[in-house]
Amino acid sequence: MRTLENYVCGAWKRGEGTLRKLHNPTTGEQCAETGTGGVDMKAVMDHARHVGGPALREMTFSARAALLMNASKAIHAHREALIDLAVENGGNTRKDAKFDLDGATGTLAAYARFGETIGDTRVQFDGGGVQLGRTSRFWGEHVFVPREGVAVHINAFNFPAWGLAEKAAVAWLAGVPVVTKPATATATVAEAMVRILIDDGVVPEGALQLLSGSAGDLLDHMESQDILAFTGSAATGFMLRSHENLLRKSVRVNIEADSLNSAVLGPDVQPGSETWNLFLRDVVTEMTQKAGQKCTAVRRIFVPEAIADTVQEELCARLSDMAVGNPALREVRVSPLASAAQRDDVRAGVERLAAEADIVFGSTDTPEVVDADATAGYFVGPVLLRARDAASCSAVHEHEVFGPVATIVPVAGDAASAAAEVRKGDGSLVASVYSDDREFIGAMILGIGAWHGRLYLGSARVADQTLGSGAVLPASVHGGPGRAGGGEELGFERGMRLYQQRVALQGDRGILQRLFK
Amino acid sequence: MRTLENYVCGAWKRGEGTLRKLHNPTTGEQCAETGTGGVDMKAVMDHARHVGGPALREMTFSARAALLMNASKAIHAHREALIDLAVENGGNTRKDAKFDLDGATGTLAAYARFGETIGDTRVQFDGGGVQLGRTSRFWGEHVFVPREGVAVHINAFNFPAWGLAEKAAVAWLAGVPVVTKPATATATVAEAMVRILIDDGVVPEGALQLLSGSAGDLLDHMESQDILAFTGSAATGFMLRSHENLLRKSVRVNIEADSLNSAVLGPDVQPGSETWNLFLRDVVTEMTQKAGQKCTAVRRIFVPEAIADTVQEELCARLSDMAVGNPALREVRVSPLASAAQRDDVRAGVERLAAEADIVFGSTDTPEVVDADATAGYFVGPVLLRARDAASCSAVHEHEVFGPVATIVPVAGDAASAAAEVRKGDGSLVASVYSDDREFIGAMILGIGAWHGRLYLGSARVADQTLGSGAVLPASVHGGPGRAGGGEELGFERGMRLYQQRVALQGDRGILQRLFK
Repeated sequence: MRTLENYVCGAWKRGEGTLRKLHNPTTGEQCAETGTGGVDMKAVMDHARHVGGPALREMTFSARAALLMNASKAIHAHREALIDLAVENGGNTRKDAKFDLDGATGTLAAYARFGETIGDTRVQFDGGGVQLGRTSRFWGEHVFVPREGVAVHINAFNFPAWGLAEKAAVAWLAGVPVVTKPATATATVAEAMVRILIDDGVVPEGALQLLSGSAGDLLDHMESQDILAFTGSAATGFMLRSHENLLRKSVRVNIEADSLNSAVLGPDVQPGSETWNLFLRDVVTEMTQKAGQKCTAVRRIFVPEAIADTVQEELCARLSDMAVGNPALREVRVSPLASAAQRDDVRAGVERLAAEADIVFGSTDTPEVVDADATAGYFVGPVLLRARDAASCSAVHEHEVFGPVATIVPVAGDAASAAAEVRKGDGSLVASVYSDDREFIGAMILGIGAWHGRLYLGSARVADQTLGSGAVLPASVHGGPGRAGGGEELGFERGMRLYQQRVALQGDRGILQRLFK
Repeated sequence: MRTLENYVCGAWKRGEGTLRKLHNPTTGEQCAETGTGGVDMKAVMDHARHVGGPALREMTFSARAALLMNASKAIHAHREALIDLAVENGGNTRKDAKFDLDGATGTLAAYARFGETIGDTRVQFDGGGVQLGRTSRFWGEHVFVPREGVAVHINAFNFPAWGLAEKAAVAWLAGVPVVTKPATATATVAEAMVRILIDDGVVPEGALQLLSGSAGDLLDHMESQDILAFTGSAATGFMLRSHENLLRKSVRVNIEADSLNSAVLGPDVQPGSETWNLFLRDVVTEMTQKAGQKCTAVRRIFVPEAIADTVQEELCARLSDMAVGNPALREVRVSPLASAAQRDDVRAGVERLAAEADIVFGSTDTPEVVDADATAGYFVGPVLLRARDAASCSAVHEHEVFGPVATIVPVAGDAASAAAEVRKGDGSLVASVYSDDREFIGAMILGIGAWHGRLYLGSARVADQTLGSGAVLPASVHGGPGRAGGGEELGFERGMRLYQQRVALQGDRGILQRLFK
């Protein structure tokens, strides 16, 4: 059995005291143990602040971009071993593990290519300058400089590789050192990745530290230039955001939390059309990929009443093809959940939804599984529900069931009605709209845009190219308002703003325009 | 005596119950009374949300720009009457009152001109698009849409006109209705401005409501799409930011709080040079304008040790020309403070500073005043201090004395030493750097940039054009990290982001690029 370690203050350190057990979700057996007992969290923050930060700030964007590309390559070189770990400790299917890992290396590489376009400078200009005085001699510019603090990254259990890499890529490119804390339950993959990066000497010392367990009193040692980025539950997000030290010091906090993402089928979409097939394919992928343990997974499926029965039949047919079981097997499409607690939460959540929606596919019973002990592993099969009365359901819009579970909500076909229902989610990461009708699409963007960080517009012309609504791409921002936490990550330069200070410069145009060039 | 009213839910309403007294700072006499007792705060929020918001969102940027220009003109038309109110209730000199009022109308007009450049659309695109799929058919864009909530503006007592207008200009242009709450002590000017805007029919109903007193339980009625923007003390900012309802709902909160702004004199600047004179002129203006009651006022003056005596002599000589007294008189340059509480705070603050710095000009005693009763009014004369030992002073870097008070801190002449001292303020709104040495300027930007929202670079070539470091211009962002609250306002499009939702759009390039155009 493996004992995970922490990488802190330039050395690997095993946690002291009682360690936490990590399990193989397929068998329920313990596969590792970890802890952060004895780690001096203030020393961790100081090390990042005084060693990692200056080293990164000394580098230009081009140099940091090269760092990211090296990190991507180093991790990719160990892809097979990392996939094996993800299958064992994450319970991921090999395909799901690749989605996580290739997402990690792909995001690092994409940010590397983006960083290269900023070039051989340490200061980024923000838009154009502007005349401030009577003549253009007194001039204004805005620049972005790296915050002189530490990025603390607290990640979710579902994407141990991608979560670590996407947050680190952005912070590093901005010039800010990282203390990363994977979710303890699935920390093996993150620990292995950090080991690769440290062994390969890819990042400057102090730019990356790892806590393979509880963050202890880390938040008490955060200062005004630090940044906390969290992905996880709304309850934990609220706790972090309420932390007195963070509030007193104006520590920047970015949160990605619960999200009841919607898929909306336009009234123009005919059964059998390309857009119709894309819609069905995406919804089934979103329900079953990672066993539905994705913050971007579709939870609410809004379809015109007139066609709801047909949608339900088609989805049930497709879901019945999705085998649940041992994720190491090629034919298995739905993995176990990541932990016993998650399985129990999902079952309880389905019961809550069932109070106002009929289960039309699957159940909360122990499912039939391929090549595994269905009761020892953390299995829940896909469950599709259908709201009994769209006007009176609330749990469907408020309770995120973090598993292979979604609910069909029949609505009137017009954009305004659909938008009103979608907005009941009170802020989501993403909504997908399936339509080839430009008017409907435009009306939906205006109707639900303010409530989302991203809108995925599925249509016939893109059906053969998209990666699905759940894929979080480095070129598009990720995050949503309200219930989704109000955060914003990625989107190339946009995600870097969290780690930078925007500074207005006012002075002699001749000097300002030649600085840093 | 005037009784101020609230403008809520489409009607003027006088507060019920006990009203709060407002005073004339020059005489200490009561000049008005006000309160919000009996105002239904939930109804106020609902009115903004359901009446004002939709009306503003229906307008294009061009139409909202026209609204701002009309608001600017309407207020400007009543300039003289508003100045009289500011002298009476604010205790402002006429020059200080004009600074506030012309700042208000100027910011509205500048945002109007800026809004006109966005044009006849409701959706703003954010940068360029990007290819997401194998071909450019699957395409990504980002747009900004108005948040479907209410902007609650809680303003400071020092700029009742400008504070109301600069926040409202940005929110309205973004398409978001405003509930504005001036500081109660100086609410007469804000109340008069809202009366002008309502009487003239400049803003659509519901786009502007006024609370001329306590906000009551308003925060309990804020929702996930709402925005709170606050300017005032760090203590109140912390209280607002800690409010459970705001934390739970991811309500966006923007705070401008305490700021120990620095002026840094470069080692290259020779006594008698243009840059030297600009430095002295700016520092004296910052200390005395609005009696130092400006969030951007200079509190810490860093000068090379070798020249500290000369700087001190020059500043003392100039300060001795600044008459304190009845602000209605042309020859008076330093007004009373806004309230008895402010006067007492400033006196206590100077005592605190005096524990580690020598008072080299003025005192906390009742000053000699022109044409006023020095003990009845809230007078404090300018006080200049000089730190005894830069290495061991702390209050100078931590305690904002909100009056005509600043401290000289002698430092070694190099940029690194000066930057290290400036950073002890733990985040400020603005620092001003006086130098004609490009290397020194560049080193200071990199050395203190991350700790500031704005750097004002005073040099010989701009000495005849600048408005001083304390002027907050609509083209430059205003706000600072850490102690300064972490907020960001103005800067044209930059300030609008607080009121908008950025949405990533993914779909058919052909559709995306023709939407909203």
